[in-house]
Order: sequence, then C-alpha cells, then structure tokens
Amino acid sequence: MRAIRGAFLDFVDDPWRHVGNEQAAARFVSDGMLVVDDRGIIADFGPGDEVAARHPDAPVTRIPDRLILPGFVDGHIHVPQTRILGSYGEQLLPWLEKWVFPEERRYFDRDYAEAGVRRFFDTLLASGTTTCQAFTTAKPVTTEVVFEEAARRNVRIITGITAIDVNAPEWFTTTADEFVAASRLLIEKYHGVGRSAYAITPRFAYGASDALLAACGRLKAEYPDLWVHTHISENPSEIRGVLALHDDCTDYLGVYEKYGLVGPKFTGGHGVWLTDDEFRRLSAAGAAVTFCPCSNLFLGSGLFRLGRATDPDQRVRLTFGSDVGGGNRFSMLSVLEDAYKVGMLNNTLLDGSVDPSKKDAAEAERNRLSPYRAFYAITLGGAEALRLEDKVGSFDVGKEADFVVLDARGGPPAVTWRTDLAPGGGAPATLEEAAELLFAIMMVGDDRAVAETWVMGDRAYSRDTVGDAADSGPAAQ
Amino acid sequence: MRAIRGAFLDFVDDPWRHVGNEQAAARFVSDGMLVVDDRGIIADFGPGDEVAARHPDAPVTRIPDRLILPGFVDGHIHVPQTRILGSYGEQLLPWLEKWVFPEERRYFDRDYAEAGVRRFFDTLLASGTTTCQAFTTAKPVTTEVVFEEAARRNVRIITGITAIDVNAPEWFTTTADEFVAASRLLIEKYHGVGRSAYAITPRFAYGASDALLAACGRLKAEYPDLWVHTHISENPSEIRGVLALHDDCTDYLGVYEKYGLVGPKFTGGHGVWLTDDEFRRLSAAGAAVTFCPCSNLFLGSGLFRLGRATDPDQRVRLTFGSDVGGGNRFSMLSVLEDAYKVGMLNNTLLDGSVDPSKKDAAEAERNRLSPYRAFYAITLGGAEALRLEDKVGSFDVGKEADFVVLDARGGPPAVTWRTDLAPGGGAPATLEEAAELLFAIMMVGDDRAVAETWVMGDRAYSRDTVGDAADSGPAAQ
Repeated sequence: MRAIRGAFLDFVDDPWRHVGNEQAAARFVSDGMLVVDDRGIIADFGPGDEVAARHPDAPVTRIPDRLILPGFVDGHIHVPQTRILGSYGEQLLPWLEKWVFPEERRYFDRDYAEAGVRRFFDTLLASGTTTCQAFTTAKPVTTEVVFEEAARRNVRIITGITAIDVNAPEWFTTTADEFVAASRLLIEKYHGVGRSAYAITPRFAYGASDALLAACGRLKAEYPDLWVHTHISENPSEIRGVLALHDDCTDYLGVYEKYGLVGPKFTGGHGVWLTDDEFRRLSAAGAAVTFCPCSNLFLGSGLFRLGRATDPDQRVRLTFGSDVGGGNRFSMLSVLEDAYKVGMLNNTLLDGSVDPSKKDAAEAERNRLSPYRAFYAITLGGAEALRLEDKVGSFDVGKEADFVVLDARGGPPAVTWRTDLAPGGGAPATLEEAAELLFAIMMVGDDRAVAETWVMGDRAYSRDTVGDAADSGPAAQ
Repeated sequence: MRAIRGAFLDFVDDPWRHVGNEQAAARFVSDGMLVVDDRGIIADFGPGDEVAARHPDAPVTRIPDRLILPGFVDGHIHVPQTRILGSYGEQLLPWLEKWVFPEERRYFDRDYAEAGVRRFFDTLLASGTTTCQAFTTAKPVTTEVVFEEAARRNVRIITGITAIDVNAPEWFTTTADEFVAASRLLIEKYHGVGRSAYAITPRFAYGASDALLAACGRLKAEYPDLWVHTHISENPSEIRGVLALHDDCTDYLGVYEKYGLVGPKFTGGHGVWLTDDEFRRLSAAGAAVTFCPCSNLFLGSGLFRLGRATDPDQRVRLTFGSDVGGGNRFSMLSVLEDAYKVGMLNNTLLDGSVDPSKKDAAEAERNRLSPYRAFYAITLGGAEALRLEDKVGSFDVGKEADFVVLDARGGPPAVTWRTDLAPGGGAPATLEEAAELLFAIMMVGDDRAVAETWVMGDRAYSRDTVGDAADSGPAAQ
C-alpha cells in the first residue's frame, strides 16, 4: 500500500451533459490523497487529511505544485508509424503509399519491431498517455511484440493484427485465411491476459475485401467480447473508393454493419465526413468514433463535426486520438490544442455569420472545447468510449492507478507569465482555477507540461530525470 | 570583424515562382562562413574555405550540427497581449472585450509596460524572431516603451500608436486629434532612428471612425515614408460591423482605400474573408497581408486562402504572423505548423473531391506549404512584404546580421528518431536534405529547435544557457 498526495482533478460525468454548468461533471481536490494497493489498484481517494487518517502506515509521495489527472487515453495510434510522423505533403491515399507502407514493412522484422516498439512506449509515456488503442501491421510478429512490451511495462492496451488485403502492395498484405489463423493464436495468447485486450482490426474498408471483412465478422461472432477497431470516413477520395469497392453499401458505416462489426466495442477512427444518418446509427449501436484533429489537419482531411457527435439526442461516444503518424504529435495535449481549433472553426461556420441556413446555436456551442470537455475526453470520456471505464479514467476505488502529473509551467517561454495570470498561479485552490490552468496547458503549454507519468501506482516516466531508464516499469503479472 | 562558421540556408527568390523546382529559390551552404563587420552588417558570405581565406584575421565562432537561417520575421504581433495569449472560448469581438482590452489597459502605466515589454522581447528572441511589425495601445507611453526597448536591444521593429476610437470602452480609446499629436511626436523621435520604423496603426476599421481614418490618411500624406499597419477581414461578424460603420464602402479594403492608406507599405492582418476583387486590388497596390494561422484557428476565424494570395497573376505580398495573443504561440515554427494545416485543408477543398465546381488544381497546389515556401515566408518573403528586404531576410552582403540557429533535434521526444530518418540526420549535406530537416522541425519539432538567436552579429539568446541574462543585447547606437 502506498499513497500519493497532491492536487487531483478528474471527472464524474460527461460535461456535455451539463451545458452551462460543467463544473458539475468534474471533481477537484486541492489537497488530496490517492492510496494504491500492491496490485496497483486504487484503494482509497479523497481529501488528504481524511484519507491519511484511514491509512496511517502507507508511505506517502508528496507531489506539490502540480495538477494530477488520470492518465491520458489515446484511442487511435499507429505503433509502426512512430518514426515517420509529420511526413510531407500528401492527402491520405498517396501518403500511405509513399511514407507508411515502406516504414510499416520494417516491423515485419522482429528486431526492428522490438526497437521501434520500445521507442513507441517511451514516447507514449513521456507524453502522459497510459492507455491506448493501437494499430500494428498485417503480420503477426508486430502485434506480438506490442503485446509483449505492453505486458512488460504493465500498460493497458487494446490492439490486434491490422489487416489489409487490397489496395496495397502485395508485400504488405495478408489474406483473410492467414489473418483468421494468426488472429486466433494471438487472441488465445493475449486477450484478457494482464491489462491487454484484443481488437479485430481491419485497417479500413478501402483496404478490405468482402472476404476479409467476412472473416472479421466471423471472428467477432466467435469471440463477441473482442473490440473492433478501424477507420471510417476520413477523406473524401477514400470514401468514394470504399463505396466503389463495396458497391452494395450506401455508406461507409454500412460496410462495417454488413459484417456485424458495429456495436458497443466498435471504434471508427476520424469520421470527418460521416453523414447525419451514420452518426445516428453509431449512436444507436453504442459504438464510438475517435476524433483525431492533428491528423485531420495535417492530412487536410477536414473538420470533424464535434458538435454533431455530442448532440445529446444521439450522443456518439468519443475518444480522441493522436493518430501518429498521420497526426504529427504524440502528445494528447497537442491533440486537445488542435481539437479546440477545429471546434472554433466549426463554431463560426454554425453561428449563421457565414451561411445563414447553417445556423445551429446549440451545435455551435457544443463545438467549444472547454477545458472540462477537453480533459474529460482524454480521460473518463475516452475510457467510456473504449468500454474501459471500469478499469481506468478516473480516481475511483477499484480502478487502476494510472495518472499523469502536470506542471502548468511546462511549455514554451510564454507559458510562465501566462500561468501567473491564472488565479492561484501554479497552485489552484478551486475547480475553476484548476480548469483555467488546464486550458493554458492545452493551448499555450505542450508536452513539457507532463512532469511525471505513473502506471499502476508506480512512476514510469519522470521529465526531470530523462536519461534514466524511462521504461523501468514493473514486470508483467 | 567576426565570423560564424556552420551550415547556412536562405532564399534568393520566392519558391511559389518556381513550382516544381523550388530548390532554385533557395541556397544552402553546408560548410559556410558569414562575416560580420563591427556595425553588425554582413561583410561577406559563402563557402567556408573561400570566405576564410579572404578574412584570415576574423575570429571565428563555429556552430556545428545546426542549421542557420536568417532571423524570423513576424509581421503581426500584439506586444501588450504577451500575457493573455490562449484565452478561452470566444470569437474575435467578444474576445477583445473580455480579455484584451483589460490587459492592454495595464500598458498605459509605464512600469507595467516596461516589465511586459521586456518579457515580450525575451520571448520573441527565444523564439528565433528578430524582426517584427507590432501593435501597441492607443496611449503613447506603450509605444515609447516598445521603441526604447527595441533600441536597447538593437532589434529591428515597425510599430506605432495603435489607435481605436469607437466600439471600445471609453477608457481604452483615443481621439483622432490626440492620436495625430502623439503620433507626430513619436514619428519625429523614432522613425528611421537606429533600426526602428514607425507605422500608422489604426487598429482596425471596426474600431475607427471616419475622423480617425481621415487623420491616418493625413499622416500618411504628410509622411509618405511611413508604414501602415492594421487588420482586415478577419471574422465574418467583424466584417459586417465594419460595413455597417462605414456604409459608403462596399468592402473592407475599400474603407482603407478611401483614406489613401493602401499602398506598398500597407499590411492588413488576416484577410481570411477577402474577396477575389480585394486580393486583386491589394496585389495591384503592392500591399501586403499577414497570414496568422494560429490565431485564425484559435479564434475560429476561418481558413486563409493561401493559394489565392500566391496566384502568380496577382501575387499579394505575404508575411506570416503569430498574432500573439489571438495566436496562442509566439514561435514562428508553430505558425508554420498551423499554416501547413490550413493549406492542407484548402488543398482538399480545392481538389474537386468535396465540391466539384470548386476544383482548381493550381490553387490547390499553391496551398501546399513545402519547407521551401514556409521558411521563405518567414525570412525573405516576410522582409519583402514589409519592404525591409534591403535590410534583412537573407545572407547578402550589406544586410543586417540577424540569424537563428536551429537544432533539428529540439522538440518533443518523437523528434529525435524522426530526425534520424532524414538523410544526413542532423548534418544535411545538400539543400534537399536540409529542406527535409526543416519540415521535420516545423511539423514535429517546435520552439525547442531554436538553439541560438543572433542580432546584428551578436548572440542575443542561447537556449542552453537559459537563466543567464537573455536580453544582454548590445546597447543602441
């Protein structure tokens, strides 16, 4: 049993359900204590003095002048693109051909995969991300290496063989049969073991024949507990390609629905060009979309309709994602920065000042990414979207003790004086002050604000001792 | 006389005039030498051995493993918003009321202004920006303090009293007569003295009565050599407000034209919603627009039509700007990141895949911000737009020796491995390799890539000795 004492902020509900009173969805303890048992599970949490009185013998780590949040959730990231993020000049389809397939191919080799995957986890943890849903490659070895390293670091992950069998070089693809056989082996070996979960991962419908999608559908029927992870409606040319390939379907979501893949554990990444009807069906199915603004902007894919997805009448679960490497930054703080910007562009387009017929004040308002909405989305919101809210996402007894320690003064030179502006400066006394600080962190600060990242109650990354072994996490159980 | 030896990259022409062969617009010397005389003026430049042979006695500062560029030009920045950048949640007009006017008011007090202006220049230089065109406040003391500090640090600046007389709190405004009298004093005192230049600065047409704009016009007629600096067509609601206020004008540019303000030294900031005809007239007048993508996204103003402004048939001079504090970052590298993203969004909207009738392949292509286009825009391009190309912007004999030393490994953790990917790693051998590195710096790196900033041949900032007096620049001449 051990304890951490500091200022904690987390969420108890979805701030989009508390328009005008978002504080009701959040919780802030300016002097709090988190108690973690020997398994890494939260045993107690609350005001410092009260909790300390209940656990007088627990050794205490004090973390002053910081803001402690649940570890960030990244719902969409490509492990084998770690090196090539930010590669110049193309929209989605030519970008895949030019940059992605050649680099991902290197991960068919175990040695290269091991080196790359280590770098991946180092960078992830340095960014404050403690849970991710990841893509790998079509060859099993890549996925095996990812599960092995995740287990070694005791990090919660959802991943799987990332299948593609058409519209890609032959050396890059898998067949439906190979995919099924390899998947079964990995599912049996890794799914539900430790903190790992398996996702049936057809890369995207543009790269999937009917046979491959049917195979995915059969796997889902055989193992209904599995996650399903893919892309949807990212880029206009891609969408047309999908509908040409699957010409019996009237929209992109319909392709996945046809094979029984859409349900509570389905996540479609991007959804930039989803129709209103697709949003409705995703909502009805309890499925999720990952909003990846850095990527949507970097590849010029477009502006995700955040206000549509958060319509309370047909709420679509949302997780946010870095989408490394279409996304040019690992840090979920950078993702929030771009998410805010997408939201503000939408806000203007929906306020009637451009096209009067498009005015929708409520949807415009839902696009404003307050710090409450933002940090909910990358903690509890992401956990809920990924159906992991019983495990992670907030400081509740019984959840896993993953958390990130934020330094509001971490960032470019401008952030220091900016932070002094916030009431309470670096030591917020109230939830409102803490929220102001969080906004400065997401818009003026950056990954430098991540001072420490803890996994299952152990410190896995420390900014101020970089150079020490960053991956000295506990061994897998 | 002194010399700096390292790898230098600059521009000799506008890359947009060399579509498909941008290298022709740039110059790279992998082992070069820059010789600076005792006034801070470039005396020689070229391949290291050749130049060294011509100046055997000049003491040499070697700067290995870096890429040296001309100092960055920021065409649009608000000195008194240094503290409040990144303030939540509003479009332009309510944001001004809520956040900007109250903070700028503090700069009416000399003591606060001096402290703020020092921080401004510290942050500017730490970001690698060596020339800026800046806004101040409507009270002369703010502008005086800026000119004084700029002179103390020997930094090139264009600035002036930033006048507003309507649509603002009465405690914030000036009258046209006060403005003229105060301007004359500052013009006589500072314009053309050292590296300072004066700009007639009506904040924007929405905040300017006919009397104020007429006064600006008379000042311009009296001092035709002065710059004119203002905002234009930033936000849809703002534009409508301007046309309601100046209801004899048919468009925003027309308001400034009416008072004789538009010409070769005119810069209008933003221009997000300029009409095609306004672009044509700006081009014909030899005027400039400042593209401020961080701000345009942060305030949700919209997507600047980069490809329209760079149409060779009607090229509008462009400078890029941080627009601190509507822009949430000081660093011109962050500005390039957001500029690239705006360009890619435009690229998709113009490729016919969304609205077939909007297809324009050439304009789509002009929106792709290659590293050549990007770094031209914030060096020589910015200098040309501001009519300062005889003074700064490239490594040519007779120009002022302002430069920035870039470290391609500076940035978030992901940048290190990414940089190894670029041919030549941190030590590019060719222009193409250097350009690849620059792209990684702008999209994956950040302000941490600024290792040193030199002003008039003296080191004014060094990242690795932060904590030393960052503003230890040479005294004014």
